[in-house]
Amino acid sequence: MDFSLELEKIGHFITEKLAGKDAVLGISGGVDSALVLSILARVLPKERIRAFFMPDSNTPETDLDDVKKLSESTKIEIKIINIESVVEAFRSLLSIEDRYAMGNVKSRTRMIILYYFANINNGLVIGTTNRTEHLIGYYTKFGDGACDIEPIMHLYKQEVWDFATFMKVPDNIIRKKPSAGLWEGQTDEDEIGMTYSDLDKVLEDVFDLNLKSLTDKHKKVEELHERSEHKRKLPEFIKAGENKDR
Amino acid sequence: MDFSLELEKIGHFITEKLAGKDAVLGISGGVDSALVLSILARVLPKERIRAFFMPDSNTPETDLDDVKKLSESTKIEIKIINIESVVEAFRSLLSIEDRYAMGNVKSRTRMIILYYFANINNGLVIGTTNRTEHLIGYYTKFGDGACDIEPIMHLYKQEVWDFATFMKVPDNIIRKKPSAGLWEGQTDEDEIGMTYSDLDKVLEDVFDLNLKSLTDKHKKVEELHERSEHKRKLPEFIKAGENKDR
Repeated sequence: MDFSLELEKIGHFITEKLAGKDAVLGISGGVDSALVLSILARVLPKERIRAFFMPDSNTPETDLDDVKKLSESTKIEIKIINIESVVEAFRSLLSIEDRYAMGNVKSRTRMIILYYFANINNGLVIGTTNRTEHLIGYYTKFGDGACDIEPIMHLYKQEVWDFATFMKVPDNIIRKKPSAGLWEGQTDEDEIGMTYSDLDKVLEDVFDLNLKSLTDKHKKVEELHERSEHKRKLPEFIKAGENKDR
Repeated sequence: MDFSLELEKIGHFITEKLAGKDAVLGISGGVDSALVLSILARVLPKERIRAFFMPDSNTPETDLDDVKKLSESTKIEIKIINIESVVEAFRSLLSIEDRYAMGNVKSRTRMIILYYFANINNGLVIGTTNRTEHLIGYYTKFGDGACDIEPIMHLYKQEVWDFATFMKVPDNIIRKKPSAGLWEGQTDEDEIGMTYSDLDKVLEDVFDLNLKSLTDKHKKVEELHERSEHKRKLPEFIKAGENKDR
């Protein structure tokens, strides 16, 4: 992959879709959002970039350090908004115990905050989902999956890492184990039950080379893809006029 | 319109898409959600319907009365969850003053609650958007517009009223002025600047009969449609492999 070409292509996509509006995005401390911020910093004036780090009580302290380093290296201010008060209000209102459900509430709470800043600043929310997550549905519907444009959704996780290296994203962020941060100690690879390296290889087989059901890993990935089909579609409805008696 | 045929068609759509899962939906006190609940009550066993009325501090008392009547007439329990504590947590965290932005926060907060109950009960969230709102984008993206299936999105507002009359939705609900409830005293028709009767006629001209730009009202509706195009689309992204150097 030619990263300078890729940067040009993504930069063009972003500026075209923004059409002069501000870019609003959430920064998690992970590599995907760090890459997107690095790209934005190269193609937009810094006053048009509104970046937010939104920790909760489970967010490791080290993420804050990494976010500070990212802010220094990109020279973009990253505002910190601790979401614990809102999360606690949801927890107490709904007596939430299930940690998956709680993870989704947190992800959607962050979406609300990003859209609030998009609302008052006439901005668009920039997504940070990569192709690997997209194809297996590894994100929260209407949470981190909710945005206006997705500038890196055509890149597999390994490509995100390589591109982030090219973009000089701080080393710590590139080397840390990917985690959706849904609960303490959670890692993507444990939860998915496969390394990203294996996952990307299987996804290339299935979606780029049309090699289906080769191994148990392929079958598992195909099942993850199928089960998450609804996340890649708009809500279904009955077409107007279909069998309509008028 | 033959309403018994319409009921059959929508009932079939719902049971097919649910495939045995529970139906989760928000009840506002307005006619759209009342109609959807009435339909669900006819096609699903009551224990599979999870309906929630989620008032905030601006919700008029009369809405609660109407919701109680709806619960009696459909014989479906409607749980009441007051969202004010969460809304207040957002307001104080973000110092929200803008009432449009606040309306969006409320709508999205309700979405989070519905998806929480869908999560823990293995349910789908049933939308209540009608065709009129859909075509002009009169709803909150990732708020009340966020759901898994939309059973009445092929019906104009006038058809919703007529169908609701056929379904014996309580009179008060049918006769009340439509309001998204974004702030006290808000009505849809004031905010849109057109009566639903005019709006539906114009929408039929433009979208069913392909009669465009006939009058200033047509032009206004076409502009509302265009400006809300992004609400009827998935987030845009770069297609994988497009100009890809590999």
